Amino acid sequence: MYIGVIGEGICPPDLGRVAEEVGFMLAEKGCTVVCGGLGGVMEAACKGAKRAGGTTVGILPGNDRRDANEFVDVAIVTGLGEARNTLVVKSSQAVIAIGGRYGTLSEIGLSLKLGIPVVGLNTWQLYREGELETGIVPVSTAKDAVEIAISLATR
Amino acid sequence: MYIGVIGEGICPPDLGRVAEEVGFMLAEKGCTVVCGGLGGVMEAACKGAKRAGGTTVGILPGNDRRDANEFVDVAIVTGLGEARNTLVVKSSQAVIAIGGRYGTLSEIGLSLKLGIPVVGLNTWQLYREGELETGIVPVSTAKDAVEIAISLATR
Amino acid sequence: MYIGVIGEGICPPDLGRVAEEVGFMLAEKGCTVVCGGLGGVMEAACKGAKRAGGTTVGILPGNDRRDANEFVDVAIVTGLGEARNTLVVKSSQAVIAIGGRYGTLSEIGLSLKLGIPVVGLNTWQLYREGELETGIVPVSTAKDAVEIAISLATR
Amino acid sequence: MYIGVIGEGICPPDLGRVAEEVGFMLAEKGCTVVCGGLGGVMEAACKGAKRAGGTTVGILPGNDRRDANEFVDVAIVTGLGEARNTLVVKSSQAVIAIGGRYGTLSEIGLSLKLGIPVVGLNTWQLYREGELETGIVPVSTAKDAVEIAISLATR
Repeated sequence: MYIGVIGEGICPPDLGRVAEEVGFMLAEKGCTVVCGGLGGVMEAACKGAKRAGGTTVGILPGNDRRDANEFVDVAIVTGLGEARNTLVVKSSQAVIAIGGRYGTLSEIGLSLKLGIPVVGLNTWQLYREGELETGIVPVSTAKDAVEIAISLATR
Repeated sequence: MYIGVIGEGICPPDLGRVAEEVGFMLAEKGCTVVCGGLGGVMEAACKGAKRAGGTTVGILPGNDRRDANEFVDVAIVTGLGEARNTLVVKSSQAVIAIGGRYGTLSEIGLSLKLGIPVVGLNTWQLYREGELETGIVPVSTAKDAVEIAISLATR
Repeated sequence: MYIGVIGEGICPPDLGRVAEEVGFMLAEKGCTVVCGGLGGVMEAACKGAKRAGGTTVGILPGNDRRDANEFVDVAIVTGLGEARNTLVVKSSQAVIAIGGRYGTLSEIGLSLKLGIPVVGLNTWQLYREGELETGIVPVSTAKDAVEIAISLATR
Repeated sequence: MYIGVIGEGICPPDLGRVAEEVGFMLAEKGCTVVCGGLGGVMEAACKGAKRAGGTTVGILPGNDRRDANEFVDVAIVTGLGEARNTLVVKSSQAVIAIGGRYGTLSEIGLSLKLGIPVVGLNTWQLYREGELETGIVPVSTAKDAVEIAISLATR
């Protein structure tokens, strides 16, 4: 099972710890971690997954495989810039958003559009016409994020 | 000047009227209208632009130019699926979001990420850690949307 | 009708003259010229088209609309790098290859794959198992290139 | 080291046997096999690689991971159509073309454009102005293909 982890490329230590825990637990459950391959939340999730002996995939925006963080097993070099966000989402059966800024927001939008479940840890809250968008499942621990993402994952 | 108009492919009549007005005023000001080329808000904006004798560009997700609405002058056939959203945003110097669902949300995220100004008419409100994201400039009329988008447009 | 003109971004003067003639004649026939938006053959074709009052579309690989040559009417900013070649081809109902190096070769391959007619002026000759690939229609004048491309154009 | 294997999605048995041998030897040498993830040459190469206990990556054109052949370890779902060819090439440090039709031709063009070495087994021969293009290194055995691809691989 492929689970995406999305979040900012530079992140505060507490988010990094959560992302690492998420990566660790995903690998323990036998999931491949898919991400954008760079630093911050992506790197922490990959680091956690490798600690548990898992497999990590980094889908890079640029043209140089050496942009991948050191915990990426399989680096995909796209040269697509931000359009690679679409591939991170499409290659995942569910997505865990950890914190995150605008790039993460675009990935959340794409996931919801494509019907790929999104679990959110300290991430965006979205409103339309005063109503909270309920497509993002809010959780407060890495353990819940992983368990819910796996339970919701599409085929 | 290229201004993007983003919004849902099927929209209620009141949003369509606003989108048409936005398209009309953009063309009056000499702007080229960029959009995703399909129906709903996109079609209404193109229709308005053509009424004012403007130019419209539709960047299509699929492989068939005949998917373009009848008011598109220049149809770009991408075959990229949702990844074409990136191109709509990058090809615009500012973006006007009118209503919109998940695809529009992803385009708003990308615009903010890329530093492309976003003006919002009855669109998403975004919060991070209880704080309203102020990157989207909220307006309540087509006239304000057009004037502010033009004034904020990047080079 | 959209006709693509493909060829190298830096080209010798004789190829440039042919490309300009091709652009001129395409515009005279009412065709929109689609190209990669940069210099060389692309610029010459756009220049010719504008001399005849035509419309030109440049689908750019990078992130900056100012990369477009001065004869591009509608610049599409893709940020996709070489993957934008696919869009040049898909947005064209037939393609005229003028000279060309490796990028042009990839566009010829894509056109043939997609069933989009290719007319070749002084371009690649391709062999498989000793047999000449006949998918490229060889011509020797701008006039023939334009007339045959228009006659073969897909819907 | 990532080595791409490109070729047609439906192939005659003799090409399939060669592709399987190529995949097997690449995996024996510790290379990850990158391909388009579908049938024919791609499937045969993955099958060979898995027989040798290697890792295989399939970069799919469509939106469904189940399009991947059964020997793909890591499936990347792009939804980009033919534009995914660019990713197969960019994610490889050298490319082995086995037979191949138009899609393969486009990948050869892209590889040459990007400076990624191409080794050819029974593939296209390309001429410009009567001169054979020497960018494709022709070989006649799987063993030579693998050894030369590895020796030429970029960083």
